[in-house]
Amino acid sequence: MAAVRRLVIDVLKPHDPPLLTFTNQLAEIESVEGVTSSLIELDQEVQNVKLTFESEDLDFEAIEETIDNLGGSVHSVDQVACGDSVVRDRRTLQDA
Amino acid sequence: MAAVRRLVIDVLKPHDPPLLTFTNQLAEIESVEGVTSSLIELDQEVQNVKLTFESEDLDFEAIEETIDNLGGSVHSVDQVACGDSVVRDRRTLQDA
Amino acid sequence: MAAVRRLVIDVLKPHDPPLLTFTNQLAEIESVEGVTSSLIELDQEVQNVKLTFESEDLDFEAIEETIDNLGGSVHSVDQVACGDSVVRDRRTLQDA
Amino acid sequence: MAAVRRLVIDVLKPHDPPLLTFTNQLAEIESVEGVTSSLIELDQEVQNVKLTFESEDLDFEAIEETIDNLGGSVHSVDQVACGDSVVRDRRTLQDA
Amino acid sequence: MAAVRRLVIDVLKPHDPPLLTFTNQLAEIESVEGVTSSLIELDQEVQNVKLTFESEDLDFEAIEETIDNLGGSVHSVDQVACGDSVVRDRRTLQDA
Amino acid sequence: MAAVRRLVIDVLKPHDPPLLTFTNQLAEIESVEGVTSSLIELDQEVQNVKLTFESEDLDFEAIEETIDNLGGSVHSVDQVACGDSVVRDRRTLQDA
Amino acid sequence: MAAVRRLVIDVLKPHDPPLLTFTNQLAEIESVEGVTSSLIELDQEVQNVKLTFESEDLDFEAIEETIDNLGGSVHSVDQVACGDSVVRDRRTLQDA
Repeated sequence: MAAVRRLVIDVLKPHDPPLLTFTNQLAEIESVEGVTSSLIELDQEVQNVKLTFESEDLDFEAIEETIDNLGGSVHSVDQVACGDSVVRDRRTLQDA
Repeated sequence: MAAVRRLVIDVLKPHDPPLLTFTNQLAEIESVEGVTSSLIELDQEVQNVKLTFESEDLDFEAIEETIDNLGGSVHSVDQVACGDSVVRDRRTLQDA
Repeated sequence: MAAVRRLVIDVLKPHDPPLLTFTNQLAEIESVEGVTSSLIELDQEVQNVKLTFESEDLDFEAIEETIDNLGGSVHSVDQVACGDSVVRDRRTLQDA
Repeated sequence: MAAVRRLVIDVLKPHDPPLLTFTNQLAEIESVEGVTSSLIELDQEVQNVKLTFESEDLDFEAIEETIDNLGGSVHSVDQVACGDSVVRDRRTLQDA
Repeated sequence: MAAVRRLVIDVLKPHDPPLLTFTNQLAEIESVEGVTSSLIELDQEVQNVKLTFESEDLDFEAIEETIDNLGGSVHSVDQVACGDSVVRDRRTLQDA
Repeated sequence: MAAVRRLVIDVLKPHDPPLLTFTNQLAEIESVEGVTSSLIELDQEVQNVKLTFESEDLDFEAIEETIDNLGGSVHSVDQVACGDSVVRDRRTLQDA
Repeated sequence: MAAVRRLVIDVLKPHDPPLLTFTNQLAEIESVEGVTSSLIELDQEVQNVKLTFESEDLDFEAIEETIDNLGGSVHSVDQVACGDSVVRDRRTLQDA
């Protein structure tokens, strides 16, 4: 299998554990070198966050399992970069 | 033939295989060095994704065949860069 | 625990102590290398500010305690970067 | 004559040959170092594409002849850079 | 106290002394390495300006005193960067 | 006289000679190192183009004479950079 | 006095001398290293231009005197950078 270098996912999570603990647990996964979480929006029960992971080769199953264990769920996979290097997605004339 | 250095295509794919597996299979193609997939939109049956490939010389037939084998189809070819180096498409006064 | 490299929080604070003293006190926390505060808006009683911290490993409890001691409160945690390096959150096609 | 370093043209082409083959044929021209084609829009019969060429000295007649041979036509020449180096067109206060 | 590295303030000043003299006087303060003033708007009696200071460690009291002596007043403190290095405030998904 | 380093002009020209030949003739002027022409708009009789010249010291009389000889006319001079180095015009709070 | 490193002014000038000569005369001032003039708008009698000067230490009186001698007048001083280095005015959350 080719290496998964960068991954952006949209996740729903409960307020507890808070975003800092949640992000920190994900950074603890062995295949994850760094992860940044950004709050999209929140209501009384859930937080909707965007998570961006980078690594030499990300293990998505381990990521998804950790999110599940923390009470969250992956709403959508928004971007995946695979291969020997990260290809930058640039805007084209077809992007709205 | 001149080398195909960078390719951006708009693809429709079923939900299964999921985007990560789909992208990973494309990165496995011998002529592909890296590929990034970005979700444009999804409905109940299909996902519309933008795929950006980079390499020394991309083999489009192999890319299209792999997409077909994964149940997807190329909706449009949005950008192609060929030659000894990648020419950057910059905005001109004629771009809307 | 993985290292917390960068943290963006939204904070409500009284007018006193003023923003410069407030920010300076936060920069005094041992785990904080640098902090930038930006005024979002103010009314007669409170200031709403965005705080961005960077460090080798931020101690959020110490940050929150200092904010409390200065009469402020954390309204939301907007961004957290953890791990061996800071992953940059880039805009994707899914960002509004 | 001064060297033509960079050229942006707006071209109409039939669907066949497809954009990848079309672009590749243009990259095969001896004076062309690299070319990037970007889809502007398409309807049932034609594709409207923006082509950006870069080289030490582009031969426009050879480019136009190849486009004609591939069934396309140059709709407009949108940008031309000539001389010892490429001058970057920057936005001024007079650009809408 | 931690070092104040960068400071952005919103100031109201009379037309006299003019902006150049006003800015120059502020740059004369010992703790100030550089200052840039930008006109926001002016009416018949006052000028509203944005002042950005940078230094190893800014002395805000001296800045405020100089502004007072020149007939101006600090309307708001808009940004403060403290610590060993300047943390750049980047746009997040929560910024309007 | 100080050196003219960069010059942006708005020019009206007939369709013949075409933009590539027109630009190439201007690049042939001895004092011009590089020139980029960008199409602003065209109607049946004329093309409105933006020309950006760079050099060690541009000879505007020679440029204007060449434009006249090619049947064009300078509609306005939009930007001029003079001196020992090119000063970049940055956006200020006063730019609309 | 602290050094004036960068200065942006809004100037009204008659059509004669033309912008190129006008800018060139300003670049001839001993304290000016470089100046860029950008046309904001013009009507039948005057041109409104934005002038950006950079130098080790600009002499504003000499600049204003030269503008007067050329029939122009300083409408407003829009930006002034003073000190040992040029501080870049960055956008904050308070900028409209």
